[in-house]
Amino acid sequence: MKILLDVMSGDKAPLDIIRGGTMAAGDFDVDIVMIGDEQIIRQTASDNYIDISKDNISIVHASEVITMEDPALSIRTKKDSSMAVGLQMLAADEGDAFVSAGNTGALYAGASLIVYRIKGFRKAAIATVLPFETPMLLIDSGANIVVTDENITQFALMGSIYMEKLFGIVNPRVGLLNNGTEKTKGTQLLQDSYARLNECEAINFVGNVEGKQIPFSVCDVLVTDGFTGNVVLKLTEGLGSFLFKKLKGIFYKNVLTKMSAAMIKKDMSVLKKDFDASEYGGAPILGISRPVIKAHGGSDALAIRNAVRQAIAYARNGVIVDIAHYAIKSSDCGSTES
Amino acid sequence: MKILLDVMSGDKAPLDIIRGGTMAAGDFDVDIVMIGDEQIIRQTASDNYIDISKDNISIVHASEVITMEDPALSIRTKKDSSMAVGLQMLAADEGDAFVSAGNTGALYAGASLIVYRIKGFRKAAIATVLPFETPMLLIDSGANIVVTDENITQFALMGSIYMEKLFGIVNPRVGLLNNGTEKTKGTQLLQDSYARLNECEAINFVGNVEGKQIPFSVCDVLVTDGFTGNVVLKLTEGLGSFLFKKLKGIFYKNVLTKMSAAMIKKDMSVLKKDFDASEYGGAPILGISRPVIKAHGGSDALAIRNAVRQAIAYARNGVIVDIAHYAIKSSDCGSTES
Repeated sequence: MKILLDVMSGDKAPLDIIRGGTMAAGDFDVDIVMIGDEQIIRQTASDNYIDISKDNISIVHASEVITMEDPALSIRTKKDSSMAVGLQMLAADEGDAFVSAGNTGALYAGASLIVYRIKGFRKAAIATVLPFETPMLLIDSGANIVVTDENITQFALMGSIYMEKLFGIVNPRVGLLNNGTEKTKGTQLLQDSYARLNECEAINFVGNVEGKQIPFSVCDVLVTDGFTGNVVLKLTEGLGSFLFKKLKGIFYKNVLTKMSAAMIKKDMSVLKKDFDASEYGGAPILGISRPVIKAHGGSDALAIRNAVRQAIAYARNGVIVDIAHYAIKSSDCGSTES
Repeated sequence: MKILLDVMSGDKAPLDIIRGGTMAAGDFDVDIVMIGDEQIIRQTASDNYIDISKDNISIVHASEVITMEDPALSIRTKKDSSMAVGLQMLAADEGDAFVSAGNTGALYAGASLIVYRIKGFRKAAIATVLPFETPMLLIDSGANIVVTDENITQFALMGSIYMEKLFGIVNPRVGLLNNGTEKTKGTQLLQDSYARLNECEAINFVGNVEGKQIPFSVCDVLVTDGFTGNVVLKLTEGLGSFLFKKLKGIFYKNVLTKMSAAMIKKDMSVLKKDFDASEYGGAPILGISRPVIKAHGGSDALAIRNAVRQAIAYARNGVIVDIAHYAIKSSDCGSTES
């Protein structure tokens, strides 16, 4: 198993990405290919006492970097960027999965343009696991601002296969994010999506899901368009930060409250992780013919290690084969392209 | 000042609504008109030792009730419902504001059909104050699933006037909820809305706001369509419940953690209120020619008292006159109907 790692992209690149990749190389039975400026990689590793001389770590040089501010199509112009080089290697079968904490738009565009979509799937989607009462996959969590009911149904199908294969959830429950539970709720698109999801035998559709139900394990896959998914994902992140900031203020008030903080410190750090999507590693771009994993932009070394772990599981579990199989087999679930 | 109160609608009706109305009659210089089945009102009050014999409390009989499951247009068929009777009284100037914790769809439809919109405003919108670092008005928080850039601009204008008049915020900062801060983000509708908000001199537009920024006082008015607003409002509620449930689990684990809970109990209850929109009372339906306030469906007596307090402030502060004035004066802010 060979994981291609973009070590130049992300808020904490290159140091945390190099460190995370090195951790993964030590923890898992895997080859790590660090893609980026070779001199910077070697210098950063050396300056920070990170040993990248292990047999299962190699470097592939790439002279450019796609920044967070670059447009999505910079994946075409910056041909020697770490992201473009990694995707080209993945497309050429020179690795089993690609992990990047970089520019989401560029990664999504590159995955579609360089690696290609699975035949039969009109759009790929970003799928993020939210760590609530039980893990819940939010798909699309940011890629497609405008979708059709066919896209929604295909997202639901891909998400179901992912949760079954990677989280062992048999017959995952699929919910449609809406502004009420009745089937007449929402826009025409959502009403059409409801009908289509309901008809599709391969999907265990449990109906509409409202915002307030999201944390309480009412479904295993929550399907929505990429705009609403982005708002849900980011609001969850924002409210988590807000709450922990407030709690910190409460606990650091005086000696007594500091004592109470000490008593529950461990449990609080577990709870904090519940709000931290990076704990589950990265978000797969489902619908792409080979495994592409988007790690959170703010990923630290541990998050990168976890994203590599997830990439290994994704590449190993035959998710993509199963998704491709469905696209060909079932035309009732929204796969009209073939 | 006479406040019309629908005592038959809401999850905790009639008891908590009657009790909340009675609290308001005691706490504020106001006349409370309780609208609903007279026999049920008198019996409920008597069974629960609530004294509704005060001079500033009166009852107006209404034989029907619109339930949470009724369709929005039941406001037309159930003409003798507490909600319809209250709105008719408001339209006939037999009260200064109407407060209901009932069916949002029916209340919104009834406000538009019975009380009418302010001339020049195409759509009314539900405006909810979210109690984060600083109060932030979310508009539209649930009424209009499909909107235009003109609607968005009018919502921003109405919301600005409300926050200035009721919360004393001079020149309120208006943000547009989007999936990124760059002006090229979002659907065509959002890009058009961005341009229009930017051009309108009466609006202090501060640009796009992402989900993760929402709790951190980046704007005083957050404008969005009613679908996304509903998701934001309900997800905030859901994540708040989820977190406090988890914290309870941590604190009730053993004797030591229970001690630490005791030390910070007061601060925690303050924090809990920060996540509880009902603390600010109800949500005005802005764009209606007279004050209509939607109290949260789950409102208890205190929340109803607070909603009445807000109704008084809304009726007293000339918000509607100011909104109407703007519709006539400025055509650059999206008021093309006149």
